[in-house]
Amino acid sequence: MLVVMQEGAPETQVQAVIDRLVSLGFTIHRSTGVRHTILGGVGPRDEFDPLDFEMMQGVKEAHRIVSPYKLANRTFKPEGTVIEVNGVRFGSNELVVMAGPCSVEGERQIQVAAAQVAACGARVLRGGAFKPRSSPYSFQGLAEEGLRLLRAAADAHGLLVISEVMDRSQLPLMLPYVDILQVGARNMQNFSLLKDLGEVRKPVLLKRGLAATLEDLLLSAEYLLSGGNYEVLLCERGIRTFETATRNTMDLSAIPVLQKLSHLPVVADPSHGTGRRDLVAPMARASVAAGAHALLIEVHPDPPAAFSDGPQSLFPDQFADLMAQLRIIAGAVGMTMAQGKGA
Amino acid sequence: MLVVMQEGAPETQVQAVIDRLVSLGFTIHRSTGVRHTILGGVGPRDEFDPLDFEMMQGVKEAHRIVSPYKLANRTFKPEGTVIEVNGVRFGSNELVVMAGPCSVEGERQIQVAAAQVAACGARVLRGGAFKPRSSPYSFQGLAEEGLRLLRAAADAHGLLVISEVMDRSQLPLMLPYVDILQVGARNMQNFSLLKDLGEVRKPVLLKRGLAATLEDLLLSAEYLLSGGNYEVLLCERGIRTFETATRNTMDLSAIPVLQKLSHLPVVADPSHGTGRRDLVAPMARASVAAGAHALLIEVHPDPPAAFSDGPQSLFPDQFADLMAQLRIIAGAVGMTMAQGKGA
Amino acid sequence: MLVVMQEGAPETQVQAVIDRLVSLGFTIHRSTGVRHTILGGVGPRDEFDPLDFEMMQGVKEAHRIVSPYKLANRTFKPEGTVIEVNGVRFGSNELVVMAGPCSVEGERQIQVAAAQVAACGARVLRGGAFKPRSSPYSFQGLAEEGLRLLRAAADAHGLLVISEVMDRSQLPLMLPYVDILQVGARNMQNFSLLKDLGEVRKPVLLKRGLAATLEDLLLSAEYLLSGGNYEVLLCERGIRTFETATRNTMDLSAIPVLQKLSHLPVVADPSHGTGRRDLVAPMARASVAAGAHALLIEVHPDPPAAFSDGPQSLFPDQFADLMAQLRIIAGAVGMTMAQGKGA
Amino acid sequence: MLVVMQEGAPETQVQAVIDRLVSLGFTIHRSTGVRHTILGGVGPRDEFDPLDFEMMQGVKEAHRIVSPYKLANRTFKPEGTVIEVNGVRFGSNELVVMAGPCSVEGERQIQVAAAQVAACGARVLRGGAFKPRSSPYSFQGLAEEGLRLLRAAADAHGLLVISEVMDRSQLPLMLPYVDILQVGARNMQNFSLLKDLGEVRKPVLLKRGLAATLEDLLLSAEYLLSGGNYEVLLCERGIRTFETATRNTMDLSAIPVLQKLSHLPVVADPSHGTGRRDLVAPMARASVAAGAHALLIEVHPDPPAAFSDGPQSLFPDQFADLMAQLRIIAGAVGMTMAQGKGA
Repeated sequence: MLVVMQEGAPETQVQAVIDRLVSLGFTIHRSTGVRHTILGGVGPRDEFDPLDFEMMQGVKEAHRIVSPYKLANRTFKPEGTVIEVNGVRFGSNELVVMAGPCSVEGERQIQVAAAQVAACGARVLRGGAFKPRSSPYSFQGLAEEGLRLLRAAADAHGLLVISEVMDRSQLPLMLPYVDILQVGARNMQNFSLLKDLGEVRKPVLLKRGLAATLEDLLLSAEYLLSGGNYEVLLCERGIRTFETATRNTMDLSAIPVLQKLSHLPVVADPSHGTGRRDLVAPMARASVAAGAHALLIEVHPDPPAAFSDGPQSLFPDQFADLMAQLRIIAGAVGMTMAQGKGA
Repeated sequence: MLVVMQEGAPETQVQAVIDRLVSLGFTIHRSTGVRHTILGGVGPRDEFDPLDFEMMQGVKEAHRIVSPYKLANRTFKPEGTVIEVNGVRFGSNELVVMAGPCSVEGERQIQVAAAQVAACGARVLRGGAFKPRSSPYSFQGLAEEGLRLLRAAADAHGLLVISEVMDRSQLPLMLPYVDILQVGARNMQNFSLLKDLGEVRKPVLLKRGLAATLEDLLLSAEYLLSGGNYEVLLCERGIRTFETATRNTMDLSAIPVLQKLSHLPVVADPSHGTGRRDLVAPMARASVAAGAHALLIEVHPDPPAAFSDGPQSLFPDQFADLMAQLRIIAGAVGMTMAQGKGA
Repeated sequence: MLVVMQEGAPETQVQAVIDRLVSLGFTIHRSTGVRHTILGGVGPRDEFDPLDFEMMQGVKEAHRIVSPYKLANRTFKPEGTVIEVNGVRFGSNELVVMAGPCSVEGERQIQVAAAQVAACGARVLRGGAFKPRSSPYSFQGLAEEGLRLLRAAADAHGLLVISEVMDRSQLPLMLPYVDILQVGARNMQNFSLLKDLGEVRKPVLLKRGLAATLEDLLLSAEYLLSGGNYEVLLCERGIRTFETATRNTMDLSAIPVLQKLSHLPVVADPSHGTGRRDLVAPMARASVAAGAHALLIEVHPDPPAAFSDGPQSLFPDQFADLMAQLRIIAGAVGMTMAQGKGA
Repeated sequence: MLVVMQEGAPETQVQAVIDRLVSLGFTIHRSTGVRHTILGGVGPRDEFDPLDFEMMQGVKEAHRIVSPYKLANRTFKPEGTVIEVNGVRFGSNELVVMAGPCSVEGERQIQVAAAQVAACGARVLRGGAFKPRSSPYSFQGLAEEGLRLLRAAADAHGLLVISEVMDRSQLPLMLPYVDILQVGARNMQNFSLLKDLGEVRKPVLLKRGLAATLEDLLLSAEYLLSGGNYEVLLCERGIRTFETATRNTMDLSAIPVLQKLSHLPVVADPSHGTGRRDLVAPMARASVAAGAHALLIEVHPDPPAAFSDGPQSLFPDQFADLMAQLRIIAGAVGMTMAQGKGA
């Protein structure tokens, strides 16, 4: 903790801050300048809130020195984490594409979708069985039936399965069917759910909340890691800004920043990041150019007929074209990408 | 649904939109202008996503006509909802103040806090037993022991109890002890929790998420109402903006806007809304001047020693001074306020 | 400047930072902790960019100790600045209301407006003669004729005049007519204009930009002060956020924060802060409750017929009702307000 | 203009809206539904503010049908605008890179910079002679001497010149030296300056303001176009959001959105867009992948010694590496890029 005293703060106020730091176990380094006294507190822990000190008499400002997240920090594993799931490696130089519809709607739809995305080189099939919807009147998902259909379609085409979990009660249903559990943006700070998932031994893809700073995202990842689940994928999917031309503003600089701050693999979701089909391909390409380890893309056999997220789902032929472009861009940044079975 | 076609959109494209609207049960009103064709679709339901139409060929833009929330809408109950809990009336011309520490820390702390806030005119005691914390390493609350102490302190001073619930599993523990359940900002779109609380028959205070529009907040309220729980309090507690001088930016215009859009009572939380003790009193006064029905304020017998939220907790004498000011301001906007027992 | 080195940063990197700080004239205070080395640089000036240091090898983070603004800083004049203009005192315990139409539209309109606002207790007449409009096709103002009409209307009713200046070329025209020059939000960082106004000897009301932090606003004020113009009024008028229910989000906490950071008087503009007439009164009341020294409010004799800003202009009778409420609220925070001539 | 009446709005209110629309020259198309009456107003002009109607009794909401910008609209020139300056073509399939230091600091610095960027394939040399700085105490530029040095360096290496103009008084000085005039983000809505530049016959690069929507940006471009200057380059350079890990959040989706809304070429500035050197290359690559026509990048022969923007300036060898990557990515999106003279 660094505490900067106000100009002319009397010695009694300086001493009060020192006393408090000492009582919390900090060793104090004091620098007395012409105008400001600076206190550097070095301690065994640093999860104290700088505001606790800024509210003290005579304090100008306080800063935390040590990051509040430890296990998610790059310094914990400088070489980076590679998460391998049945031969698919996240965090390596292999670009992984996860694709499929927003929701599982029926057997035929998900089988067709799986065939299409596998043919283009996707390695993981996405599809929601439990849907978090802003409106209680919207389609809420097929639940276990959806999971069963999703697994069958993935198996038929050599794909892994990723699907969203919304609360603890869904876990027993989901674990037999899915390879990767997804936590949605609106649950990024559902700390009860994060604690539950810390005890699970399956990879978790954690989406950044709409108003979450990157530090917030890494603190949520810390919940999972400190619970014992080390397989966490961080996912940028757009934040809320004043711009209304897009549903969200995709923060692509989050990709290199997260890779600097953390050792965990970074995924980009250009579908939710933009909310509009015509922007998905440009943002998917940009994500790879910015260094993303993996992409999560909504593709539907017939987007206008989709039960949910139709406007942001790619048509299958758009997805095929995009994958060809991504292969070239991946090469420019030292990544490789699986060939599609249909290629 | 209103659909505006692009200039020069050919008749086949106009017809495709009409066909889709008809297939969804809409009756069509068509206006053909010099430059634009406009289609007004009037239907039994309007929870369709305008983007579904904006992605169609030849469509310039689409707008929803009917609000996506029904039961939370002002038109559902134009005279406004008054929620009465043991004689305390939210949504009336009686300004209700809820106050107390962030967390219940022990018997003496909560008893002293209850005595202090009751003496100043507060009607409800706040105190957390389960704490949602950004960091897994922070204090997580006393759980049931905290609830027991909170209830005892409130009963000893004639106060109601409000406390936060984070997931379904805590409900059986909480229901015997609390009068009002609080949903935190980070859980505002935890739809699983909202469904569970829709089945409860206790009032719920629903905090606005940090990136939630007022429409999002009302849609989350709609989850509770459509589940059968009609006693919902809406709470403004600050949103995320670019300004860093305050932890959040309290959006006070949300108070009159919510009162126009909805019949539900509106609460302001200036403690979380600012994150800094020195701003709590100005923002509490401003909230009442803007028309809030109730306030939620953190007060601690000894803020520097608080386990959580110390920097934003008022000292008891600051709270007493504030309550005197609020009484005058309430009068200016046609509200009244309970006299404190210590007055 | 405070520089925190990364864990394990080698001595050569520490030395490079020290060398750079020394070359810039800083005296160094070094604290070597178990994990981090901290360098406190105390120097004669502190306008260096912390990022210059954060980009150096081995640096974890850097913070500025001294505020980048000096003359606008509260410490420069701890007792606060009172700006007196012909008997009207900004920054005192007298609440000053400035009111009138967005634009001067003609003689009758501005005379009627002046009479109405004077009767209710306003002390300053507002009215634009040069209008900054987002669209080049919108009404651009009456220019000098507008200024002449504005001055005549103000003089006839014992009011001061405030009007907006957009560039240097307008100054010779404006100076004979206005008492206070207004800089609009979109020009807050038009540094050429700020330099010109630093040389003027008339008070300047400086509006906060839509994306300006409070530090940005104070740095823009510093341009005026360092140019020799000490009469600066700071004005909160709403910032851009994701919320779309209001045109802007009025940041009322800016009022107490600015009063803490600076000695300059603080004005609130609830008309632009909300953009909607029905929100102006609640936000005006809230601004006074939060401690504003003055208000700037758009009032028009016939808002639906206004050439600009009609939707956010009050009807005269709404303004009269509001002024009565403000008088009570001012009393609650130790302020007084002029009686209207019509009272 | 589309006006949706509230449920149950009486006929008198509907008629008042119709009367107002008719008085403004609109032809009315009325649709009367079960719950809502919708009025479609088709008129010769559509620069009316929807809020003017939303404030009327009985109106639920109003929407503008026609875009408020005409000449900047894609429909005005569907095939897109190519701006050719001495053989460099903006808006074509040729990716143009503009590079150089933030400020011209001296002859040797700018000559070296020009040689370096030309060798790597840049076509335009950037360098500021007049600097808009947040603090009045920061370096303000070399003025005419800077322009002279910049022109000489560009000519010596076959480059064009781009430099920023801050106000009208600088124009006579600048026009003989520069090929492209740049308007900074903080002046995007300095309408006086925009009017002056509308009369100039040199291309203008217009940067998006930190809180400007894409519609705002296009309206500012409309000022230039409607003044008669048709050579406008639109530039994304980051917006203000809540995220603090980067100075700004670069909104890359703005690139494809602007290309859809407008016919003008789109430039990306990853240096200001991120504010941090280590993010410039990822965001430059991402900008090209997203479809940018041109890039504006800060490169300095010795960034740590730069007078301004050192932390976001690339080292020359970083720039060389980046240009090699950009050449590959350009190919993936159907663009080509000039070979460097040093290649």
